Amino acid sequence: MLDVCLLGTGGMMPLPYRALTSLMVRYNGSTIMIDCGEATQIAVRKSGWSFKPIDLLLITHFHADHISGLPGLLLTMGNAERREPLIIAGPKGIERVVNSLRVVAPELPFEIKFIELSEKEEDINILGLKIKAFKVNHNITCYGYSIELERKGKFDAEKAKALNIPIKCWNPLQKGNEVTFEGVTYTSDMVMGPDRKGLKVTYCTDSRPTEAIVANAKDSDLFICEGMYGDHENDHKAKDKKHMTMYEAAEMAKEADVKEMWLTHYSPSMVKPQEYEDEVKKIFPRTVIAKDRELKELKFDE
Amino acid sequence: MLDVCLLGTGGMMPLPYRALTSLMVRYNGSTIMIDCGEATQIAVRKSGWSFKPIDLLLITHFHADHISGLPGLLLTMGNAERREPLIIAGPKGIERVVNSLRVVAPELPFEIKFIELSEKEEDINILGLKIKAFKVNHNITCYGYSIELERKGKFDAEKAKALNIPIKCWNPLQKGNEVTFEGVTYTSDMVMGPDRKGLKVTYCTDSRPTEAIVANAKDSDLFICEGMYGDHENDHKAKDKKHMTMYEAAEMAKEADVKEMWLTHYSPSMVKPQEYEDEVKKIFPRTVIAKDRELKELKFDE
Repeated sequence: MLDVCLLGTGGMMPLPYRALTSLMVRYNGSTIMIDCGEATQIAVRKSGWSFKPIDLLLITHFHADHISGLPGLLLTMGNAERREPLIIAGPKGIERVVNSLRVVAPELPFEIKFIELSEKEEDINILGLKIKAFKVNHNITCYGYSIELERKGKFDAEKAKALNIPIKCWNPLQKGNEVTFEGVTYTSDMVMGPDRKGLKVTYCTDSRPTEAIVANAKDSDLFICEGMYGDHENDHKAKDKKHMTMYEAAEMAKEADVKEMWLTHYSPSMVKPQEYEDEVKKIFPRTVIAKDRELKELKFDE
Repeated sequence: MLDVCLLGTGGMMPLPYRALTSLMVRYNGSTIMIDCGEATQIAVRKSGWSFKPIDLLLITHFHADHISGLPGLLLTMGNAERREPLIIAGPKGIERVVNSLRVVAPELPFEIKFIELSEKEEDINILGLKIKAFKVNHNITCYGYSIELERKGKFDAEKAKALNIPIKCWNPLQKGNEVTFEGVTYTSDMVMGPDRKGLKVTYCTDSRPTEAIVANAKDSDLFICEGMYGDHENDHKAKDKKHMTMYEAAEMAKEADVKEMWLTHYSPSMVKPQEYEDEVKKIFPRTVIAKDRELKELKFDE
């Protein structure tokens, strides 16, 4: 199961009624956070989720609304008794940027390890998850991320019996291990069915639409995407400032055939994102005009 | 008249129901801000005050809860069409710290000028105000500030007439200028009474009690002071961490004989600062347990 909480839905600057866009994903006792703008720590408190288990922080890019809450978050994690290392991944330069921001938070009771991204696409396999970073198209280097939880096939007890595999070998085989018992070697594929559909969340803000976004969002259970503008008067702004309209996001969601799309990163000038819901849904019906602290439990198909 | 708004009353970290301590003072079309922690820009929005007229930012010290909102504030001021230079004053190193934080806000449409403080006490005479910075006693270099609006004496028309001063000279004399008319020189002190009581606001957080605080708060109309702890169980914490209890603040207010004291910078562990009101008022009755966005218009005595 993956627990997802979209902490905020704003872009550019935090507002009294709308936190900046940031995502938390919980899996197996760990929490992954994507982006940490100013006041994200307040949004975490409002969500009721904990600071301490944040093991991985993924940064999309170095604009203030996506990273300037970092010093405060780090200090608050320290106050929440965090002592284990924190991994921060982001575009090349992430270590320099984080250290520069840490001028006001120089002392922390935990270590920070960095993953600097420089390729078009990079895999980060960590915490039992398959994470993919993919470059998008903004006015500075910016990455999107997909987080995937894979699911093994079913154990076929009938087959195991038919092959006379001793019961004490079943458990390690279920875990994917090879076992040798009384001189006979058994492999996992003898008793395990084909991999089943896992869970996938894809996150992308601050970009024009690109093929890489569609390719990486493909078959996601949840695609969280920027929809900075809804009014067609702003179509040119989206192009100029390298952002996306809600309709462009919907076209990508349709092409990627995702299960559900949440729109986020609304312009501060957009007072009621819900106004555009009907029009967006004409393109992609499974769109949610997300609100701050939108929650979802993603579960494996039965 | 000085308009005062205490944007927040928290210390250490911003909370959903309590913004970090920061002060705004309006005078004659300009705004002065003291400190800018994370999410202070949200508090400004909640107050309804403007970003654009912030002409002077005074920073007490370089702990994150007092300065980490700076990049976001600067960007938002730029978005609010600010084009005039902004002056930022703070402890020695302020330029380096601000520039370090600006790694995520490198481009601004206005210039920043710095005033680096290094003496025990320094005068900053600006915007028609007499501002005094004074070093306090925290675990890193920290300043308190007093902001004073002076008030000239009354113009004595009877005296001017008796001295046969031509009426066309009255106005420049009222403004404090010397005038020569038909070979005769007139000076301001010939017609102006003694200076009258002006207005004074003193601000101090993050310090143990010191004589300099009392001396600078002396006769303030409003003394805004840290009261981080109220429960006597935390008396040792205040000492260890170089903060102040509400009672220590009250003792200083009493000694400085201020008109009114507002307590602020409450510890996140202090849920109801009002609990300690009765006990604090036994020491200094004119204490206000300030709330976020506590407002006051300070006016000259009639």
